[in-house]
Amino acid sequence: MITLYDYLDSGNGYKVRLLLTQLGIPYRYVDVDIMRGETRTPQFLAMNLDGRIPTIQLEDGRYLAQSDAILWYLAEGTAFLPAERYARAQVLQWMFFEQYSHEPYVATPRFIVRHLPADDPRRGELPQRLVRGRAALEVMEKHLQSRSYFVDERYGIADIALYAYTHVAEDGGLELAPYPKLRAWLARVAGQKPYVGLLDRPPQI
Amino acid sequence: MITLYDYLDSGNGYKVRLLLTQLGIPYRYVDVDIMRGETRTPQFLAMNLDGRIPTIQLEDGRYLAQSDAILWYLAEGTAFLPAERYARAQVLQWMFFEQYSHEPYVATPRFIVRHLPADDPRRGELPQRLVRGRAALEVMEKHLQSRSYFVDERYGIADIALYAYTHVAEDGGLELAPYPKLRAWLARVAGQKPYVGLLDRPPQI
Repeated sequence: MITLYDYLDSGNGYKVRLLLTQLGIPYRYVDVDIMRGETRTPQFLAMNLDGRIPTIQLEDGRYLAQSDAILWYLAEGTAFLPAERYARAQVLQWMFFEQYSHEPYVATPRFIVRHLPADDPRRGELPQRLVRGRAALEVMEKHLQSRSYFVDERYGIADIALYAYTHVAEDGGLELAPYPKLRAWLARVAGQKPYVGLLDRPPQI
Repeated sequence: MITLYDYLDSGNGYKVRLLLTQLGIPYRYVDVDIMRGETRTPQFLAMNLDGRIPTIQLEDGRYLAQSDAILWYLAEGTAFLPAERYARAQVLQWMFFEQYSHEPYVATPRFIVRHLPADDPRRGELPQRLVRGRAALEVMEKHLQSRSYFVDERYGIADIALYAYTHVAEDGGLELAPYPKLRAWLARVAGQKPYVGLLDRPPQI
């Protein structure tokens, strides 16, 4: 059985939980407290040198890290990842957009607001991060003007990757009201069954 | 023929130039001056909503952005990308590591040092970025303790993605002397023929 090393409040981990659920793959969930440095222990670094969740252990014992690489691995050969070469590259384009132009400006503000003390100096980063967060949401809104999903008009891992932190962007101070197409897409993703929420604790197996 | 929209000093663009050269694929090179806002014109945004180079136009007219997604597209079916599922996911793991944990802390300091005025306030970001840059180089050094290349002991696009900004990390103030395995790997990559340098201007076609 796959083991998922994760932190419940992480949108990156949630991507993997949502896809595993929708693929009907049971998994063992191991809570790793990133706020207590549990990703920087020698034991954890032996699984993932970069010391981050999510990290999965496959049934054969091998490890894989980086949320979007894990999504790709799990989705291969399923309806969540197209077979055609250009469509597959577009999935990656959006997943790299997510990690480079979106996550640091949509997810990080949420982390700062939810997990750091009111007087933490990192709160000073918020205004600049939110400017770039709005730019990322604007890119998504424009792409969705004429589309129902990010690639090939079919729900898949590019949508899961972008949904994870976008649907909770308001937690970090990014209003979603100005983006009607984006909100309609969020509702379409949330309507995919079976659905689990970001903070739904996985069953203990 | 493929058209590459690029900025010569960009390591992200260089990844694509190096792979195109090594695959023997001729391409048309179009210089886009990111310092003059040429990636934010309506014409450029029609090719890539996120307004970034590198962006390629395929022979059929379609566009693809994000350097590592472009590498994946071009390398598919070649010796630069393994065929086996876990190895492919590891390639992605390292490419997402590159964009998330490496590029902002290895490439951005180089950009700040080379392109922003001496009194630019963004120079204040350098110390913190360099701390995380050294952490990224440390991860690479540890991974290379027992390996010649990043995935499957074979040169490929994970190496190209990581090489692009690592081999010029000193431009941004990151010393490479403390990382002997990393330097040996850099030399192995630089020994791959045909090789082009980051600042070698592509031939006009």
